[in-house]
Amino acid sequence: MSGCDTLLAELGLNMERHGELVENLGRTYREKVLSQPDRPASMAYFDSAIHELHGDRIREIFEARAAGRKMIGTFCIYVPEEIVFAAGAIPVALCGGTAWSIPYAEQTFPREICPLVKSTLGLAFSDTCPFAPLEDLAVGETTCDAKKKTWDILGGDGFHVLHLPHKKTDAARRLWLREVRAFAGRVEHLTGVRITARSLGQAARLMNRKRRLLGRLAGFQRSAAPPISGTDALVVMQVALVDEPQRFCGAVARLLEELRRRVRQGVTVARPGAKRVLLAGCPAVAGNYKVHHVIESSGALVVANESCTGSRYFEHPVDARRRTRGGLLAAIADRYFRIDCSCFTPNDERVRSVVRMARRAKADAVVQYVLQYCHTYNMEAVRIAEALQRAGLPSLTIGTDYADQDTGQIRTRVEALIEGLRS
Amino acid sequence: MSGCDTLLAELGLNMERHGELVENLGRTYREKVLSQPDRPASMAYFDSAIHELHGDRIREIFEARAAGRKMIGTFCIYVPEEIVFAAGAIPVALCGGTAWSIPYAEQTFPREICPLVKSTLGLAFSDTCPFAPLEDLAVGETTCDAKKKTWDILGGDGFHVLHLPHKKTDAARRLWLREVRAFAGRVEHLTGVRITARSLGQAARLMNRKRRLLGRLAGFQRSAAPPISGTDALVVMQVALVDEPQRFCGAVARLLEELRRRVRQGVTVARPGAKRVLLAGCPAVAGNYKVHHVIESSGALVVANESCTGSRYFEHPVDARRRTRGGLLAAIADRYFRIDCSCFTPNDERVRSVVRMARRAKADAVVQYVLQYCHTYNMEAVRIAEALQRAGLPSLTIGTDYADQDTGQIRTRVEALIEGLRS
Repeated sequence: MSGCDTLLAELGLNMERHGELVENLGRTYREKVLSQPDRPASMAYFDSAIHELHGDRIREIFEARAAGRKMIGTFCIYVPEEIVFAAGAIPVALCGGTAWSIPYAEQTFPREICPLVKSTLGLAFSDTCPFAPLEDLAVGETTCDAKKKTWDILGGDGFHVLHLPHKKTDAARRLWLREVRAFAGRVEHLTGVRITARSLGQAARLMNRKRRLLGRLAGFQRSAAPPISGTDALVVMQVALVDEPQRFCGAVARLLEELRRRVRQGVTVARPGAKRVLLAGCPAVAGNYKVHHVIESSGALVVANESCTGSRYFEHPVDARRRTRGGLLAAIADRYFRIDCSCFTPNDERVRSVVRMARRAKADAVVQYVLQYCHTYNMEAVRIAEALQRAGLPSLTIGTDYADQDTGQIRTRVEALIEGLRS
Repeated sequence: MSGCDTLLAELGLNMERHGELVENLGRTYREKVLSQPDRPASMAYFDSAIHELHGDRIREIFEARAAGRKMIGTFCIYVPEEIVFAAGAIPVALCGGTAWSIPYAEQTFPREICPLVKSTLGLAFSDTCPFAPLEDLAVGETTCDAKKKTWDILGGDGFHVLHLPHKKTDAARRLWLREVRAFAGRVEHLTGVRITARSLGQAARLMNRKRRLLGRLAGFQRSAAPPISGTDALVVMQVALVDEPQRFCGAVARLLEELRRRVRQGVTVARPGAKRVLLAGCPAVAGNYKVHHVIESSGALVVANESCTGSRYFEHPVDARRRTRGGLLAAIADRYFRIDCSCFTPNDERVRSVVRMARRAKADAVVQYVLQYCHTYNMEAVRIAEALQRAGLPSLTIGTDYADQDTGQIRTRVEALIEGLRS
């Protein structure tokens, strides 16, 4: 047993199953990420960060907790990280991206629930999630039916549920602001740390920096001859959700530096004539590279990603110029309320945004990625496909889970789409 | 063509398809409702009302509109009928309960959506819903992911979406009150009729009377030797959602009178030793008798129905003693906010309510009815099954759509449940 394994065993993980999980994640990562040709050397940091989610990052959080900091588990990008950091706590996204854990959820949960929720629950139920024993508070939200009811089942005092409204009216905005304030109160209560204008402003500037850097990465992705693959950009996003932000920003800055050099030297990951794809829809959290891999190993390139592990995470800075705690909390509430999750009705902003992103990235086609049984993205895909058609942009909607069984079928559909673009 | 068919053709229905639909609905009704032995004679009114949904009821609404009244289509029992009636408008529930129309929805909509939503959309898309051409306003709500996104697709100016929050906090309650007030404003604008304390009070008393009568019917259902089947009680509920309320109340009063006579004469629909079942979960709207029929044709009796076409519709009167328009609107908002739909988190009230209803009805077992892909009832079923187990009540969860393919399988499971109760 390595040092980290000793720690994980002490934390009460089922080490046999955890070994299986890590082996499984490692294999997927080798096959779908490490196998890519011409990767930027600076991706080494992010590869390592993904790997150390079951190692050094756990130790780091374990030690931070020993020093009095709290860890807060999250399942959605609507949870304002600024508030968590302002109280000196550590937010970690706990969404599961692996098919491996799903059978553990299906023992007690309905099967007809999206793979992300089942994978997350399966990690909890199989005692293999290394963050679970370190979690001082879990934060759920009311985004979708499946997640909302998950909190009921997992719930209790260790769960805080953010009430996200589903219309963007003024009344809904006020409710959301109240929720954001209440969350700040809950975090203060948990940590014993008073959130101030100063700490909140610092956290907002740090998160804005992270967003800016990720925005620049997206800029490289959508350039004429992208120096980085969509799969690698996804890995960076996945690390953003779990990593220590200062260090993460440094690593992204180094990556951007390398990408700048690549552009100067004319190095691109795009094969000649490669078709450009905007991937839009559901998130692909750590462990999940399925659709990115199919698209990019079919000779096309993901030049933009409209998702919670893409543009939805880094768009719109917080107005960090506000000087008071209340003003900053309001600015934070505003920023998060701009996220155009499909849980909103109506959601015309998102329909327009997908078309705009596709044009901006000079995408040849759009692939809508819908996690199986995710009703809101699945149904919104109908409207978006219509809007894309009106805009003269070919599109394809892929509804799938985390299993590999349908990969061949998806590949056939993606290849047909790409083939159609050539003719 | 009958006189009504001429009207339907003039309204622009596809008469060939409509003929198919009516034949299909008629066959289902004969097989699953009319085939029951020992039905109360007063059910004739309700049988006819279901039949006349494609005949006299259409003519009645057509004529009311010609006289200046408005028709408002609804899809959920969260829509306050008091407000609609207070403005002299006519609310009609438009949810589809037939498998016949589903293929028309699946031509453009995702398949993995609950059958109720697909059936509803299919009726609209196939031009066979006789109410659609008469509808002056449709009212959607944000209860579940699938319905919420349906309004996006069907939406437009003819759609009003009630924003139902998903937590029962004070802030959520205020938002809901605002929504109820805004809905009253929208209905006033549509009808040109000012809703007053007087008209609202009258409507509230009428709706309370309807609720009281339906509550008494439920009392007969749960008596020791029920004089009416669960399937017939369901038919009464289905009619409640679409019928003219004064006439409906009169018909229910006559039915209750007959049931009283039956009890005095010792007439019961329960076969000796019949096991008593509480059916809990999703609604079964007009056209859908599938699970009721399986249970009752397996020799058990549905003695209580916890659903939107059951207790959720008639529980909790509006406090009609309030004297002002504002006071009455607040009382209406309160009443509807008490409904314990699975869209809420947490939803402990419902978990407790199911156990309480089962005990009150002296149910031998509970069958949880989940429409396929309805995440909230599906996931809440896990918690409810646990609570029932703690209470020593056997239960079974049936997840199904409107098709008949799995009826044999459901029958086997229900019979096994009943068999288990005997041993």
